[in-house]
Amino acid sequence: MIVHSVFFKLKHAVGSPEEATFLNKAAKLEILPGIENFQLLEEVSPKNSYTFGLTMEFADQSAYDGYNNHPDHIRFVEKVWLKEVAEFQEIDHTVYPRT
Amino acid sequence: MIVHSVFFKLKHAVGSPEEATFLNKAAKLEILPGIENFQLLEEVSPKNSYTFGLTMEFADQSAYDGYNNHPDHIRFVEKVWLKEVAEFQEIDHTVYPRT
Repeated sequence: MIVHSVFFKLKHAVGSPEEATFLNKAAKLEILPGIENFQLLEEVSPKNSYTFGLTMEFADQSAYDGYNNHPDHIRFVEKVWLKEVAEFQEIDHTVYPRT
Repeated sequence: MIVHSVFFKLKHAVGSPEEATFLNKAAKLEILPGIENFQLLEEVSPKNSYTFGLTMEFADQSAYDGYNNHPDHIRFVEKVWLKEVAEFQEIDHTVYPRT
């Protein structure tokens, strides 16, 4: 099990229609094959500049790769993510020690 | 519900006895009041430099503050964390939209 998370800040103003449209598009990634426990997150720590997050789980690296290489994911990254996200941090984790 | 996570890289060599001792000390934070679903994590993404993580849940900000201000937590930060951690990123999140 791999938990893939990304925390990010948008170029859009907080509470703007553009923000809502972005989040709606991001939420649609949930239907892609291999994704489990997809969640849209609000980042609330004052110790970083991110305001939202996405987290999802994959059974194994193969499922994760399938998502990364899925045409709908690639299209989202190229046409939406790279244009509308100001900064981000990806985090992937497993429970330690691995079982 | 607030999920508090921190991802970090130690000054110690990977697999060293010092690493194991640090992780054992960090794992003992689990017994502090207010912490739910404490987990020690392995960070596996090639897109950042962190190698481990800690995650824990708090029912509300009051429970989170109680942990932050607990003498055992403060002592761990001062005597262990600040001396042995090379770099780290804190992330706090809730599910969006907040319910």
